[in-house]
Amino acid sequence: MRPDFQSWLTGIQVRFERVLNELLPRADVAPQRLHEAMRYAVMDGGKRVRPLLAFAAGELVGADVERVNMVAAAVELIHAYSLVHDDMPCMDNDVLRRGKPTCHVQYDEATALLVGDSLQALAYQLLSEHRLNDDAERQLEMIKLLGVASGSRGMAGGQAVDLASVGKALTLPELEYMHICKTGALIRASILLGAQCGSGRKGNPLDANQIDRLDHFGKVVGLAFQVVDDVLDCEADTATLGKTAGKDADSGKPTYVSLLGIQGARDMALQLHREALDTLAQFGDAAMRLREMADFIVLRKF
Amino acid sequence: MRPDFQSWLTGIQVRFERVLNELLPRADVAPQRLHEAMRYAVMDGGKRVRPLLAFAAGELVGADVERVNMVAAAVELIHAYSLVHDDMPCMDNDVLRRGKPTCHVQYDEATALLVGDSLQALAYQLLSEHRLNDDAERQLEMIKLLGVASGSRGMAGGQAVDLASVGKALTLPELEYMHICKTGALIRASILLGAQCGSGRKGNPLDANQIDRLDHFGKVVGLAFQVVDDVLDCEADTATLGKTAGKDADSGKPTYVSLLGIQGARDMALQLHREALDTLAQFGDAAMRLREMADFIVLRKF
Repeated sequence: MRPDFQSWLTGIQVRFERVLNELLPRADVAPQRLHEAMRYAVMDGGKRVRPLLAFAAGELVGADVERVNMVAAAVELIHAYSLVHDDMPCMDNDVLRRGKPTCHVQYDEATALLVGDSLQALAYQLLSEHRLNDDAERQLEMIKLLGVASGSRGMAGGQAVDLASVGKALTLPELEYMHICKTGALIRASILLGAQCGSGRKGNPLDANQIDRLDHFGKVVGLAFQVVDDVLDCEADTATLGKTAGKDADSGKPTYVSLLGIQGARDMALQLHREALDTLAQFGDAAMRLREMADFIVLRKF
Repeated sequence: MRPDFQSWLTGIQVRFERVLNELLPRADVAPQRLHEAMRYAVMDGGKRVRPLLAFAAGELVGADVERVNMVAAAVELIHAYSLVHDDMPCMDNDVLRRGKPTCHVQYDEATALLVGDSLQALAYQLLSEHRLNDDAERQLEMIKLLGVASGSRGMAGGQAVDLASVGKALTLPELEYMHICKTGALIRASILLGAQCGSGRKGNPLDANQIDRLDHFGKVVGLAFQVVDDVLDCEADTATLGKTAGKDADSGKPTYVSLLGIQGARDMALQLHREALDTLAQFGDAAMRLREMADFIVLRKF
């Protein structure tokens, strides 16, 4: 019998911390301060939503956990680097992240810049030095997927649009486009990479139509994730959130709440949640963890 | 008959600008400002030493030029991203690069940060979406090589050591270790990646001993490159150099000149030059361009 969702989630979170601990350079290896700061930026961090999505997608296809570990670590390193850079004074200028001083506050700006750069390089090192798929050509496609998702037409591009939007009145489609890049691209990549660990000898590869459905699930869940974030950011206080609350609204950044109101944003999240579950219908029981992840992401606080 | 070195060099520089122009996202594709800034940071830039080394190593093994184009572009994108980030106020705080305002001066700091992040992602995208070696597993090894060379135990780590060394008295071995990481790792990777485009159907793969020799050549040439840089930085004025002259000495950074004096640093460069040529002896005529590149790097101004 499969463990309930909470046990599955906790089990993965605990195991995944050990995986990250193994994969990050040790803090007593030179350059020590940089390696210590890389660990500070990555370890004990957040709920690990992207890795959890990768593991849930891996279960859909019966992927080898050792393989999913590597793609989960890679997407989490990319996510962690983006947080370190986004928090810097020239970007969002945030001093608190996950209840701790941000990396440039704890260390210094130059170190934070190099931490982000080094975490990105490490993500690609992991995806190329471990076998992730029986077919090396498929593995090259997986690396390309992460490059596109995190680059100028994905996560980094979304952050550029976000910065340019401060103080501007965006339309709902413009806001959606921005978030589909900024947070959605990496969430979609996490799911697709997890699923692609399953092709070859050790799992059941998906056909093109199934991959499209899974990608659509990722797109919808990624958007819902952002909408819920905006609602929580508006409602929660700083202590609960572990980062500075109300910051986006204060800084004149458009949010789903500022466009739709709290109730409108909540309704949108629930509608996206339904769409996400509908998209998984054809996968049957194998998609249980992905369904539970959709619940987890959308229903986490309301 | 092969063209003389100057014609070979100019031919590659001209063709390579077109390659970069093709590979970079167009400035009219969203997010436009980010893509424009990425082009600003990469195009019309410098002598393209790392790409030239990749092409010279490609000639050693008869590699397909289309393949070498991609690794040359990838290492140049990594180099360009490192310059953009190193020039930022929290690092070297430089306002002039290659005779133009640095990226954060021309645009803004947030854009410069995202330009660097996006260029790094694009480098890995290029290495994974184009066929570089008949054997996809070898291609995965090539991607790993770039990840290690540019990450915390390579280029980015060297920059961290460099920053930590300001105002400190380093020994010659410490200075050498720093530069072997900071500039040497990417130069070595450029050479090895160019040579690895040659394995498989279309070229002559090298044996392990030959790869070691080539790597040693890269290490020696990379060090020589830095020693010559220090000499030029000390001698040249800002106009000739295209970047702020005398900056390292002014900021209390240890250099080969500050440790060995101008003449001592020159002697060291010439000794490394001889060692580089000795390392290539067994390769015969196929290594002609690599020899010429060693001359070009060491003898460029004295």
